[in-house]
Amino acid sequence: MANIFANIPKELPAELFEDIVRNNGVEIERIVSKGHSSPLDGWYEQPRNEWVIVLQGQAMLVFADQQEVHLKAGDYIEIPALQKHKVSWTDPDVETVWLAVHY
Amino acid sequence: MANIFANIPKELPAELFEDIVRNNGVEIERIVSKGHSSPLDGWYEQPRNEWVIVLQGQAMLVFADQQEVHLKAGDYIEIPALQKHKVSWTDPDVETVWLAVHY
Repeated sequence: MANIFANIPKELPAELFEDIVRNNGVEIERIVSKGHSSPLDGWYEQPRNEWVIVLQGQAMLVFADQQEVHLKAGDYIEIPALQKHKVSWTDPDVETVWLAVHY
Repeated sequence: MANIFANIPKELPAELFEDIVRNNGVEIERIVSKGHSSPLDGWYEQPRNEWVIVLQGQAMLVFADQQEVHLKAGDYIEIPALQKHKVSWTDPDVETVWLAVHY
């Protein structure tokens, strides 16, 4: 047993990506952000579907069609494979804890 | 976008199981319990691995070797395929919200 909110480093010079499960083509990942966002250039365009939930903090996702989504604790969204997206903002004052399932 | 804590019925005569994603052999499921536990007889013995996290409330899982695990908000555990387990207790005073990934 472990806790999703435990073992968060005091300093986060970059976003923290950690695999929790990687098995049968499925990946369950914890991401911790604090004021980070994606590079201005380029998009995430992933080969697999992603289901992502914000468990603490808040964040903004933006899609290639300029649609922007504000995620707060408990909010989740499904990002189909190859859908271009990026993180445009995360809360600078608290750690934003994401849980992502890639499948 | 949706919220994992939204749309919880006021009355929960039985545990509530709802698929969020079912795709490529992967199932992401929300479970809501309030004082429910598994039947005294028998065990869950699932063909797939299960990764489960408690997001609100608290619960006890028991395994066939009598090991008991107390899960509170943020606690997660991996239950390998075919490992016999059951829910021995969930908080009777608040809704326990679980997120389960079967893979």
